[in-house]
Amino acid sequence: MPRFEPLSEEALVTIEGGWQRLGSEVGVRFDHPRAIELFRAAGQTVDGPVVRFDPGFLAAQAAFAPAEFSLHARNPDRDFIVGGDHMIFGPANGPPFVRVNGERRDGTMADLEQLLKLTQMTDALDTPGRNILEPNDVALDVRHLLRALAAARLTDRVWSGEPSSEDAARDCIRMGEIIHGGREAIEARPVMFGNVNVNSPMHFDVRMLEGLLTYADAGQAIIVTPFLLMGAMAPVSIPAALAQQTVEALAGIALVQLVRRGTPCVMGSFLSATDMQSGSPGFGGPESALGLYASGQIARRLNLPWRSGGGTLTSSQTVDFQAGYEAFNTLSAAFLAGANVCWQSAGWLEGGLVTSFEKFVADCELLDLLIHQFTSVEVDEASLAFDAHVEVGQSGHFFGAAHTLERFRDCFWRPTVASTENNDRWTRNGSLDHAARASRRWERMLESYEQPPLDEAIEQELVEFVESRATELGDPVDVRTSGRS
Amino acid sequence: MPRFEPLSEEALVTIEGGWQRLGSEVGVRFDHPRAIELFRAAGQTVDGPVVRFDPGFLAAQAAFAPAEFSLHARNPDRDFIVGGDHMIFGPANGPPFVRVNGERRDGTMADLEQLLKLTQMTDALDTPGRNILEPNDVALDVRHLLRALAAARLTDRVWSGEPSSEDAARDCIRMGEIIHGGREAIEARPVMFGNVNVNSPMHFDVRMLEGLLTYADAGQAIIVTPFLLMGAMAPVSIPAALAQQTVEALAGIALVQLVRRGTPCVMGSFLSATDMQSGSPGFGGPESALGLYASGQIARRLNLPWRSGGGTLTSSQTVDFQAGYEAFNTLSAAFLAGANVCWQSAGWLEGGLVTSFEKFVADCELLDLLIHQFTSVEVDEASLAFDAHVEVGQSGHFFGAAHTLERFRDCFWRPTVASTENNDRWTRNGSLDHAARASRRWERMLESYEQPPLDEAIEQELVEFVESRATELGDPVDVRTSGRS
Repeated sequence: MPRFEPLSEEALVTIEGGWQRLGSEVGVRFDHPRAIELFRAAGQTVDGPVVRFDPGFLAAQAAFAPAEFSLHARNPDRDFIVGGDHMIFGPANGPPFVRVNGERRDGTMADLEQLLKLTQMTDALDTPGRNILEPNDVALDVRHLLRALAAARLTDRVWSGEPSSEDAARDCIRMGEIIHGGREAIEARPVMFGNVNVNSPMHFDVRMLEGLLTYADAGQAIIVTPFLLMGAMAPVSIPAALAQQTVEALAGIALVQLVRRGTPCVMGSFLSATDMQSGSPGFGGPESALGLYASGQIARRLNLPWRSGGGTLTSSQTVDFQAGYEAFNTLSAAFLAGANVCWQSAGWLEGGLVTSFEKFVADCELLDLLIHQFTSVEVDEASLAFDAHVEVGQSGHFFGAAHTLERFRDCFWRPTVASTENNDRWTRNGSLDHAARASRRWERMLESYEQPPLDEAIEQELVEFVESRATELGDPVDVRTSGRS
Repeated sequence: MPRFEPLSEEALVTIEGGWQRLGSEVGVRFDHPRAIELFRAAGQTVDGPVVRFDPGFLAAQAAFAPAEFSLHARNPDRDFIVGGDHMIFGPANGPPFVRVNGERRDGTMADLEQLLKLTQMTDALDTPGRNILEPNDVALDVRHLLRALAAARLTDRVWSGEPSSEDAARDCIRMGEIIHGGREAIEARPVMFGNVNVNSPMHFDVRMLEGLLTYADAGQAIIVTPFLLMGAMAPVSIPAALAQQTVEALAGIALVQLVRRGTPCVMGSFLSATDMQSGSPGFGGPESALGLYASGQIARRLNLPWRSGGGTLTSSQTVDFQAGYEAFNTLSAAFLAGANVCWQSAGWLEGGLVTSFEKFVADCELLDLLIHQFTSVEVDEASLAFDAHVEVGQSGHFFGAAHTLERFRDCFWRPTVASTENNDRWTRNGSLDHAARASRRWERMLESYEQPPLDEAIEQELVEFVESRATELGDPVDVRTSGRS
């Protein structure tokens, strides 16, 4: 399917001039001595923690990153390609709260495990990412270990490592090595994402840089994501935010390429507007959709895979009309814009503070719908069904036509939660709205979850590593049996 | 903004071959002797009520219809252009039931009057159309008179005439003449739409043809709308349905041009899929969106204005997540496809059986959002806000930047119903979901409704006409005061 590309060539050139000027005149701050040294050695202008880039330097570095690459899962059927015409999807990542059956509370490890199971059962989702939900009942410094272990046990997909400190990143890489046959193996065939958020405007902080440098050393795929709420972290102008987003992402990608040329990178974007009355972020509105269309054009111009900010973003507190249209606007914009990586595509609620079980399955329906909608329809003589018209003529209907009877089972997309019931039937069935039906669906899904087989020796080694590291970190855990149900 | 055009030139040629073959080999049935005579006189092959068209005849007739035309409202500020890059919007038309504040019941004249007032107050809506809701408390044979009178009194917009019988169409045209200065005036400057639905497949029934012929004689704008639920009135194949939709619409438009060459016409479409398990229609799914994208391409190829089936269609029973995403998918597809006329863009619920007050205002927010989203963003040096970046540098935020302070009031789109409240505030304010907030909004809106002034002599003449026709029809009415509040 074609992409929707509203920016003219002239507009793209103007934005390119904008990000180049920002890079060379304003510059980007890096809070890590190794980053500064790498840029200095590459001949860039260093002024304390701020680096100003020569014209052409950032684009030249970005050209070392592959336009397309593969990530490998422990089940080879779950490997995927990032870049080109490919799109990969993951659920919400990061929320501290959960909303389930009308209750909003702190997320727990048990909730996270349920959400990992739902991810594993959903064909439209490619990866659980890093943290569908924060397990607040686990000590902070060992969470990355338990999250990675749960993802490795409960799914057979690619998962993402912890980016926000060197130790945590090393632990995640070590677990990837255990699963995939050692350091050399994962350097040759990368197995995980590390997503590095920019501390916008124009600033990479030390914890994110530790993660970036560690994943770059290991050759794992790095997504560099400017997080821009226009009005707060960016000017109140879409072109200005696009220029900023581009130079921030390219600055991170250039650093990765200086560490290890050819390391797979993804240009990230997370662009939305602030409600200027309340100061709250707004999601799913026209500015973020326009930002997505344009971001896709910019990334393709740079020949880089790109991540759209999120799949099914919404500011809504609950799984209502607002959540439905905001999620749909964000997700359909990602399709129209040709995004390669769409995280936050299931369960995201309340501006990212909440992962909702109901919205998780409601969003998976949207994903499935849009995958159908953006698959080309074959148009040939047979598709014109001329014989059906001859059979039916100028009256009657097509329900009984031979053409229909041969195809009725799979000729149309079918929803999993949405209802086409008439009013009598809907009322008899309890007058359940979409959220109530979604609640029943995830409960039913979990009843038939099957844990994907994991080699016993590998699992044993993972358990020993996690327990020994947790003990070193001062928060011993017992993970021999959890996450096995 | 560009259009989203997924069909290749080759696919368009295949569909063109398909509709031409349907027209020449299967043919279209017309249940009206005048229609048959007109086609016979134009040299087409008549076989009882079925007409088969020479290759090239339909396209040649369609070429007599203007690519763009104006319709005139009683307030000249409300005139609009149909065709080209213009889009016009109207609310739901046709539902017999109303849903308001959680109750579903028969619609009444009082409900219709409220909905006309909301239409008048909504800038994004251009026309109330014909019947936002059926006034079931008015005798059937005089409804068209009271609906037209209410539209003329409570709004100053273009409204639509009754298409489904000769007498009703004549009455509506007469009322247009009274408002706009007589028959000659409205023939020179058309003032209303008549929407003619095809009795698909391939059949125009006598009541619709009476309407079509009467509006064509008067030179008013005629929309010819095939109503296709694939599986029922069309084959279970999108290309087949597109070919059928095209030949059906062109057959009606050709007839209009035979009656009165140059009469404004709109190519209609209303294409969706049937749920093949329940037999119920489904709305807002991938097939109807794909059908819209393609219909826009076909209409532009024929250089005809076109109507997308509906703006905010949904199968949902209530204003929930499903209603939000189905409405958004249909409406955004109309924008992407470049539809010129979008009826059913506010209030449509339950597959068109219900007009919902809550959904009416919720949908108007979507309209407003998408009008913003599909308005080009200016990209120039000033839009890059370079000075704001110099001011803020590598830390801090843009809330206080001079660039922001100059623009914060209107830099972003603002919703009318959606909320960006944080959880504390939302809970304090009653934990209202989108539907509950929408309910408050329409109630508040109606408090400030002001009836647009209408010349007293014109109103007097309308009242006398309506009362005298109602008496002739055997159902006397007193309309001197109703609809004036």
